[in-house]
Amino acid sequence: MEPQRKLEEYLKQITPPNAALAEMAERREDLLAKPLKSLGRLEDLAIQLSATQNATTLRHGHKLMVVCAGDHGVTDEGVSPYPKSVTYQQILNFDKGFGAIAVLCRTAGVKVLLLDAGVDYDFPPLPGLLNRKIGKGTKNIAKGPAMTREEAVLSVLAGLEAVLAEPYVDLVAAGEMGIGNTTPSSCVSCVYAGLTPEDSTGRGSGLKPDLVRRKTEVIRRALEVNKPDPGDPLDVLAKVGGYEIGAMCGVYLGGAMRQAGVIIDGFIGAAAALLAEKLAPGVSKRMIAGHRSKEKAHAKVLEHLNLKPLLDLDMCLGEGSGAAVAMFIVECACTHFNQMRTMAEASIDEPDGSMTS
Amino acid sequence: MEPQRKLEEYLKQITPPNAALAEMAERREDLLAKPLKSLGRLEDLAIQLSATQNATTLRHGHKLMVVCAGDHGVTDEGVSPYPKSVTYQQILNFDKGFGAIAVLCRTAGVKVLLLDAGVDYDFPPLPGLLNRKIGKGTKNIAKGPAMTREEAVLSVLAGLEAVLAEPYVDLVAAGEMGIGNTTPSSCVSCVYAGLTPEDSTGRGSGLKPDLVRRKTEVIRRALEVNKPDPGDPLDVLAKVGGYEIGAMCGVYLGGAMRQAGVIIDGFIGAAAALLAEKLAPGVSKRMIAGHRSKEKAHAKVLEHLNLKPLLDLDMCLGEGSGAAVAMFIVECACTHFNQMRTMAEASIDEPDGSMTS
Repeated sequence: MEPQRKLEEYLKQITPPNAALAEMAERREDLLAKPLKSLGRLEDLAIQLSATQNATTLRHGHKLMVVCAGDHGVTDEGVSPYPKSVTYQQILNFDKGFGAIAVLCRTAGVKVLLLDAGVDYDFPPLPGLLNRKIGKGTKNIAKGPAMTREEAVLSVLAGLEAVLAEPYVDLVAAGEMGIGNTTPSSCVSCVYAGLTPEDSTGRGSGLKPDLVRRKTEVIRRALEVNKPDPGDPLDVLAKVGGYEIGAMCGVYLGGAMRQAGVIIDGFIGAAAALLAEKLAPGVSKRMIAGHRSKEKAHAKVLEHLNLKPLLDLDMCLGEGSGAAVAMFIVECACTHFNQMRTMAEASIDEPDGSMTS
Repeated sequence: MEPQRKLEEYLKQITPPNAALAEMAERREDLLAKPLKSLGRLEDLAIQLSATQNATTLRHGHKLMVVCAGDHGVTDEGVSPYPKSVTYQQILNFDKGFGAIAVLCRTAGVKVLLLDAGVDYDFPPLPGLLNRKIGKGTKNIAKGPAMTREEAVLSVLAGLEAVLAEPYVDLVAAGEMGIGNTTPSSCVSCVYAGLTPEDSTGRGSGLKPDLVRRKTEVIRRALEVNKPDPGDPLDVLAKVGGYEIGAMCGVYLGGAMRQAGVIIDGFIGAAAALLAEKLAPGVSKRMIAGHRSKEKAHAKVLEHLNLKPLLDLDMCLGEGSGAAVAMFIVECACTHFNQMRTMAEASIDEPDGSMTS
């Protein structure tokens, strides 16, 4: 089947969350042996997951992090202090289990899948690395489109089908590695979250404040040169996106198809979430914002998506690191909901109704 | 040995955190394969733990939650919507593994130890419940002291010696169960965090807003009737505290003696932390605030202790629930620090120093 047709067929399989189950879950929360609403956001998460997982017993045993990797031609413009080579070097580091995302996922009991969507390097065959290389890095978006439309579709399919290929997926997040990828993420945020290039440009992996101005100009130029069509998310992805950004978007869509809880990481993940919401309107209701990163535009994009971050730990590493830490919070939402007894089951006396509200 | 003398001998064994190790840890963080400071508060925690654990490899394998329980005579004044009986009923529920704290600790891989410091109930022998019952509930602080000075000392020793009795303790938190215990916690906060009875009084386990005013008056009366001496923390604990509050304070002190990371839970835990800091000045440098609860005075007490909460999840359950969730964040601080490779070890190219700062 032709790729775009295939994607459309997949998207049709995404259903809205089950509102009736959300109501049931809220009633159960109110019966559990604790003061009313006292578990705060853990209760909100349990209610949301009940609807998204279409389940009365929440699933959390199979946690997956898909780290999507790709390179970016726009690094030619000096938008990152790191050389492009760091993309493949970090993927090798993750594969060995020593990178931040590998360590944090191991701590949280999360399976890591590395997905090469477009790294400018020939990896040897590695058991933990899925080869879906679409190109050896995107083209420089300051001068023209990042990729063709067909490549954009393929990048989304890469992430989506990686999730579909898993035997079980209860909670899923997308991480990323791609030197230069805050620049296309800023472009996508300008198109879809109403940000100006100034608002959307941050320090990325530690760019000097005076070089941030140059990066802002690159973002402005990329938007002017490419004129991405907001009515067509695949056009936006092709013109000012990136291979791993498309793949992350696909991971969310695949997670939605599997009725898994979908956890969003940082700024790049949020830009991919904007694209997913445009491709499958309403899919953001299945999303959980793992954290708020230090990258300044992140909070604004999350607000636009109506997502409230779970954690605020001053992190700005990327890789999926914030989502990995947040995965445990989501797991706590599942376990308390599944395993706690109600007041009646535990033979606990009720509060005096005239004293509480 | 006479109890107060024994406590003094224990307190002498608490050492200050090792500042040289904190410096070494910071240097290591700056070498790890990630942008500088990009793990934010996880890095701060690793640096703090290196100093408090006096270690270059952070310990996190043995995580302990001591849930301290006690009853409160002040419930006679109608300060809680729940009957006193809920204290023992919840302890039985925790012991069976169904209460919130039991579930969250199981999720986080934390051992739970239940400590009866003064519940108004005769428990059968239970393997998970340590019997250090000092009295069957405190006296009504609105009319006189909660307990004798000797009982106050015994309550601190109960928590402290529970921690000393563990073969290994890497990270430790104190939780609580005691219907009515936000009222004595407010009293302690007034004495030591400079709060007024109005500022320090919240809704506890869901008291109706108009009954909060009555609770405020009870707190004001308890302070007037008892005149606790701020210069003498054991006098404050005896007059307006509680058995489980003393025990929580002891857990922190025991954790400090064992050079463990000490995680503080909610408002009651913060009040106990104020007492611990007065008994062993400087011990709060070993503390980590797990979360900010919805109970309004909590944030103010943490600020007074110079502690910044890790989580803000709108929780107000108590039991140690916020600390249990935070335990995982602390574990992530340990694992990334121990297990990540440096840029050089991972053969990752350095950033262009002229582009970053």
